[in-house]
Amino acid sequence: ELRAVIDDLHPADIAYVLEALPPDDRAEVWGLVAPEADAETLGEVLLEASEAVCESLVEALSHERLVQIAAALDADQLADLAPLLPQAVIDEVTQSLTTEEREDFRAALSFEEGSVGARMVFEMVTIRDDVTLETVLRYLRLFDELPDHTDQVFVIDRDDHLKGALSLNTLLVNDPDATVADLMQTEIFTLHAEDDASDAAQAFERYDFVSAPVIDRRGRLIGRLTVAEIVDVIREETEEQVLSAAGLREEEDMFSSVWESAKNRWLWLGINMGTAFFASRVIGAFEGTIERIVALAALMPIVAGIAGNSGNQTMTLLIRSIALGQITPANVRRLMLKELAVALANGVVWGTVAATFAVLLYFSAPYVLKLGTVMFMAMVLNMLVGAAVGMAVPMLLKKLGRDPAMGSSVLLTFTTDSGGFFIFLGLATLFFS
Amino acid sequence: ELRAVIDDLHPADIAYVLEALPPDDRAEVWGLVAPEADAETLGEVLLEASEAVCESLVEALSHERLVQIAAALDADQLADLAPLLPQAVIDEVTQSLTTEEREDFRAALSFEEGSVGARMVFEMVTIRDDVTLETVLRYLRLFDELPDHTDQVFVIDRDDHLKGALSLNTLLVNDPDATVADLMQTEIFTLHAEDDASDAAQAFERYDFVSAPVIDRRGRLIGRLTVAEIVDVIREETEEQVLSAAGLREEEDMFSSVWESAKNRWLWLGINMGTAFFASRVIGAFEGTIERIVALAALMPIVAGIAGNSGNQTMTLLIRSIALGQITPANVRRLMLKELAVALANGVVWGTVAATFAVLLYFSAPYVLKLGTVMFMAMVLNMLVGAAVGMAVPMLLKKLGRDPAMGSSVLLTFTTDSGGFFIFLGLATLFFS
Ligand SMILES: [Mg+2]
Ligand SMILES: [Mg+2]
Ligand SMILES: [Mg+2]
Ligand SMILES: [Mg+2]
Ligand SMILES: [Mg+2]
Ligand SMILES: [Mg+2]
Ligand SMILES: [Mg+2]
Ligand SMILES: [Mg+2]
Ligand SMILES: [Mg+2]
Ligand SMILES: [Mg+2]
Ligand SMILES: [Mg+2]
Ligand SMILES: [Mg+2]
Ligand SMILES: [Mg+2]
Repeated sequence: ELRAVIDDLHPADIAYVLEALPPDDRAEVWGLVAPEADAETLGEVLLEASEAVCESLVEALSHERLVQIAAALDADQLADLAPLLPQAVIDEVTQSLTTEEREDFRAALSFEEGSVGARMVFEMVTIRDDVTLETVLRYLRLFDELPDHTDQVFVIDRDDHLKGALSLNTLLVNDPDATVADLMQTEIFTLHAEDDASDAAQAFERYDFVSAPVIDRRGRLIGRLTVAEIVDVIREETEEQVLSAAGLREEEDMFSSVWESAKNRWLWLGINMGTAFFASRVIGAFEGTIERIVALAALMPIVAGIAGNSGNQTMTLLIRSIALGQITPANVRRLMLKELAVALANGVVWGTVAATFAVLLYFSAPYVLKLGTVMFMAMVLNMLVGAAVGMAVPMLLKKLGRDPAMGSSVLLTFTTDSGGFFIFLGLATLFFS
Repeated sequence: ELRAVIDDLHPADIAYVLEALPPDDRAEVWGLVAPEADAETLGEVLLEASEAVCESLVEALSHERLVQIAAALDADQLADLAPLLPQAVIDEVTQSLTTEEREDFRAALSFEEGSVGARMVFEMVTIRDDVTLETVLRYLRLFDELPDHTDQVFVIDRDDHLKGALSLNTLLVNDPDATVADLMQTEIFTLHAEDDASDAAQAFERYDFVSAPVIDRRGRLIGRLTVAEIVDVIREETEEQVLSAAGLREEEDMFSSVWESAKNRWLWLGINMGTAFFASRVIGAFEGTIERIVALAALMPIVAGIAGNSGNQTMTLLIRSIALGQITPANVRRLMLKELAVALANGVVWGTVAATFAVLLYFSAPYVLKLGTVMFMAMVLNMLVGAAVGMAVPMLLKKLGRDPAMGSSVLLTFTTDSGGFFIFLGLATLFFS
């Protein structure tokens, strides 16, 4: 029976299968699954699916079914899904929430994307510090199950202020007659809802947390961040970096329409078109020189390309160092000098190779030695330009509060292409005039 | 006192501070820390540091100190550090291991890099299924502390065969008089030591695990994989992808010598040099045409550049889909047709823009309409080449069992550059002959 098959599948697996199906097959399978599965499962499928796919799944559901699904979600999950749900569904569901749930929902909605608040869950276990471990054990037995990723319970006072944490580990290995106050950890790592989720991810990576408490400005415990969310943060963050480096604005549904896909890709293609036009005009300015020595046209892409590549290496390493928080005012000067030195070394080595190539190729030409000299000088200079721009762009983007990777490769290629053409053809014009 | 400061710092924080320091400051700080901190802390610092930095830290330690540090490590940690330790240290330490530890160490060393075995830990809690929860609780109380990331204990028989798992959650919420057999989960997700760590990471992401058991070929429990390692796997994997796309063979110590850095970057710069020479020869073959119509030299980088960019978008999305396991024999044809359609749409749009640019720029020239036509046709064709190669390269690399991202952008640029020059100049030669 279909019902049995669906019940056996993890919601994340259902989402995965749906993602890999072309739109019509996807609609068909969803049409079979949606009426059979329970509302909670469907909710988790929607949460696990990528945004693009989730939209199409939501569209296929009736108002009533969506209300059932939304009602089965926790407040934080509802907030995650809210942007993709019709307003009527949200209105109907929020009316049936308890006051506390409604407050949680509003709070979750109010946090900015990329903040800890937007990622936290409200479900957690809290205890007081004047009880024994035995009491805590008895209290936990009252639960049907503990919230996911409960590796510690939080100790709060009457006003919800976070006083400490008791790990299940501590709870389990110690004498049940001991009191919480004696065994709880009081120096604990806490997050604020406004904190950056990426920074939280770095803390989780470094200290190997399973969960961490989130407090508000007055030190009151309001939620919990878990490693399952952190894994998603890390994946999404790196994926966004890779996509934006390629000039893609968002993840695409593999099977979205040609039109949707083209739109997603046009912004950066357009920008790239602009920079390519500019580079073309740089070459255009030297048409007289090229007319006389046509070899220049064949050699100029080498100067532009290698420097672009070398600058990209510098830039990639710098973006990584920035992401790891390794760039400090104290070491930045040293780092820049080092990268310029590497660029100089690379320029001398590859400039020699390229000059040799040029000389061998145009050996019979009367201007061959000048050509080799121009090639060598242009390679060295453009490598230095590549390294300088490769460092300047991410640092500038960071200073401006932007993602250091965003569009950086377009800006770099722009400089190494236009700069390379200008340096190479400019030097040639000087030497051959 | 320094000692107190060090004791207060997490080993990962010490590693982080050391990473961000230039070599001489790093050596100085390490010279202060190494004699003060206990061996276990130092071991974790070495494990947390990047390989490049770890090497320099190990070099600064005496044989005796290294033996103390190595002796304080778990078998799996020792195996992780082994490649960076002098053989004499390993020999001395392995002699003092128990038989079981030595076996664990040998096993850990034998697993391939990137396998689950290389990432697993041996420390875990195992129980039998014929006892009550009360007995389990009493058993756990015998521990000083549970192994890190213990969210479940494993149920094994006399021959170490894995029969099930009991989560701490289940242990804590249920009646202590119930038996393990009644409450343990028997359908559990298990890993094999030979499994790919990346695949394991996908399972952890999808099912939100904190830990998972690792079994050998005969179904015997041999270890455990934890989410802390998975977070590292994900980070390293995506970082490797970004670095290798930029033509960097490995992460660099930010402050490694100019010589070390240059060596790390030469392989791909050299390959890039080869492809640039080839593209240069393609242009060289059409020098006669360029001599007659020098505008071609100024316009040709546009054709190459935009197609390279558009192909890179296709390729990035495809690499992502492959990584997510979304590409199946059933949908690959459909996906290819779609990407070609997007490339055609992009080609028509941007080809028109580029042709208009060319016509406006060289408006007074007698050949202006031919030039516009050549520009448009070359743009459309080269966009299609970019899309085709952008799909073919990662699929081919995957078929060959390689990382689909490895060097792919160099291969793509090679094709869109050389192909773009060939198509554009070839068409021009036809039209203007
Ligand atoms: Mg999601
Ligand atoms: Mg729930
Ligand atoms: Mg949320
Ligand atoms: Mg004990
Ligand atoms: Mg870690
Ligand atoms: Mg650890
Ligand atoms: Mg490590
Ligand atoms: Mg240990
Ligand atoms: Mg290992
Ligand atoms: Mg209960
Ligand atoms: Mg997950
Ligand atoms: Mg979940
Ligand atoms: Mg290029």
